[in-house]
Amino acid sequence: MDNKTLLAKVDHTLLGVTATAEDYTQLCKEAAEYAVASVCVPPSRVEFCVAQLSGKIPVCTVVGFPNGYMSSEAKAYETEIAIKQGATEIDMVIDIGRVKEKDFDYVLKDIKAVRAACEGYILKVIIETAHLTQEEKITLCGIVSESGADYIKTSTGFAGGGATFEDVALMRKNVAPHVKVKAAGGITTLEDGARFVELGADRLGTSRIVKLVQGLEGSGY
Amino acid sequence: MDNKTLLAKVDHTLLGVTATAEDYTQLCKEAAEYAVASVCVPPSRVEFCVAQLSGKIPVCTVVGFPNGYMSSEAKAYETEIAIKQGATEIDMVIDIGRVKEKDFDYVLKDIKAVRAACEGYILKVIIETAHLTQEEKITLCGIVSESGADYIKTSTGFAGGGATFEDVALMRKNVAPHVKVKAAGGITTLEDGARFVELGADRLGTSRIVKLVQGLEGSGY
Repeated sequence: MDNKTLLAKVDHTLLGVTATAEDYTQLCKEAAEYAVASVCVPPSRVEFCVAQLSGKIPVCTVVGFPNGYMSSEAKAYETEIAIKQGATEIDMVIDIGRVKEKDFDYVLKDIKAVRAACEGYILKVIIETAHLTQEEKITLCGIVSESGADYIKTSTGFAGGGATFEDVALMRKNVAPHVKVKAAGGITTLEDGARFVELGADRLGTSRIVKLVQGLEGSGY
Repeated sequence: MDNKTLLAKVDHTLLGVTATAEDYTQLCKEAAEYAVASVCVPPSRVEFCVAQLSGKIPVCTVVGFPNGYMSSEAKAYETEIAIKQGATEIDMVIDIGRVKEKDFDYVLKDIKAVRAACEGYILKVIIETAHLTQEEKITLCGIVSESGADYIKTSTGFAGGGATFEDVALMRKNVAPHVKVKAAGGITTLEDGARFVELGADRLGTSRIVKLVQGLEGSGY
C-alpha cells in the first residue's frame, strides 16, 4: 500500500489534554499537506481547527470522551454544538458500565441520541475494546450496526489498550456491511497501519502515520 | 481526628468506567451507613443514585470529566441536566490546554459558564495538578477564587497523579478565604485523610476511607 493511500485513511489526531493552539495549528498544517481523511481534535478546539482548515480537510471531534458515562442528553447536546461549530465527524464513546450490566437497550438508545444530533454527518462509535470480553465485542458489533452509525471504532487511547489486529478482524466480520471500521490507539508503524487496512479498517486514528511519512521525506526516501 | 469527623468530609466516589448499577447500589448503601458528605458518580448514574438515596445523602457528579476540553456550552448543559436530575454538587474540570497557552480569560469564562448553570448548588473546580507547574497552580487559585466556585479540587484521578500534601497546603494558602479545598486521587489511608484535612482540605474524594473504616469495624476495632 502506498503512503498516499494510507494517509487518505488517517484521522490525524491530537487529544492530549495539555495541547495548545500552537499544537493544533501544526496539526492542521500537516493535515492539509499530507491530505489525511480528517483532523480529530477536542470539542473545545473545533472552531479553531475549522477556521485553520477552511474546508480543505474535515474536522472530527469526540463526544462523551473518553469515559463514555455522560448522560445521553449531554452527549447529544455536545454533538449538536460541535456540528454547529463546523465539525462533520463525531467519535462518541459508549457507556461501558451499561455493557457490563447487559443493559444493551441503554447502549443502543445512547448511540441513537447522538445519531439524531448529527444526522447527515459521520458518526463513529468507540466501544473501548480494552474493557470488553469477546462476547461483549460481538454483541456491540450488532448494536452499532443497528444504531445507524457509520463506523465502529476500537479505542479512545485513554484506557491503557489500543487497536489490535484481532479486534479489527473480529469487528469487520461481525458488523453489517454498511458499517466501516476505525482502528485507533497505539498505531506506531506504517506497516501496522497498512495491516489494519488490509484487515478491514477504513480509518486509522493516529498522529504517527503523518510523522512517519514526514520522517521518510526528511531522510530523502 | 475521629473517623466520624473524617467520614463527614468524604465524597464517596465511584468513577471507574466499568462500574455497574450493582456497584452504585452498594456505594449508596455505604454512603448512607457511614454518613459521608456525598456520593460522587458519573452523570449517567445521577438519577439512579438520587433515587437510591432519597435525599439522605447529596449526589455529586462530574462535568467535562476527566479531560476538561469539552466546549463551555456543552459543560454548561451537562451541568444543567445533572442538576435537573437531582445532583446538588458539580465537580468540573478546567481546559488544561488553555492554561498551557496562558489563555486564562478562557479558563475563567469556562468556569463561569458552569457556575451560571448550577447557581445555588456546590461547584468544585478540578485543576488537575499533575499537569501543572507551581506558577500555574498559584494563578489558578486566583482564577477559581474569582469565578464564584465553592471549591478548588486537586485531581480527577485519571491523570496519573493525585492529591499531595504540598498541593493542598499551597491551595489553602493561595485561594480566597471563601474557597474551600477538595483533595482527590490516591488517598489510601485514614492517616493521610486526616493529614489532608489538617492542611486545609474540607472534602476528600475517595472510596478508600469508607472501606478502611469498614475494615476496622470488621476487625472489632
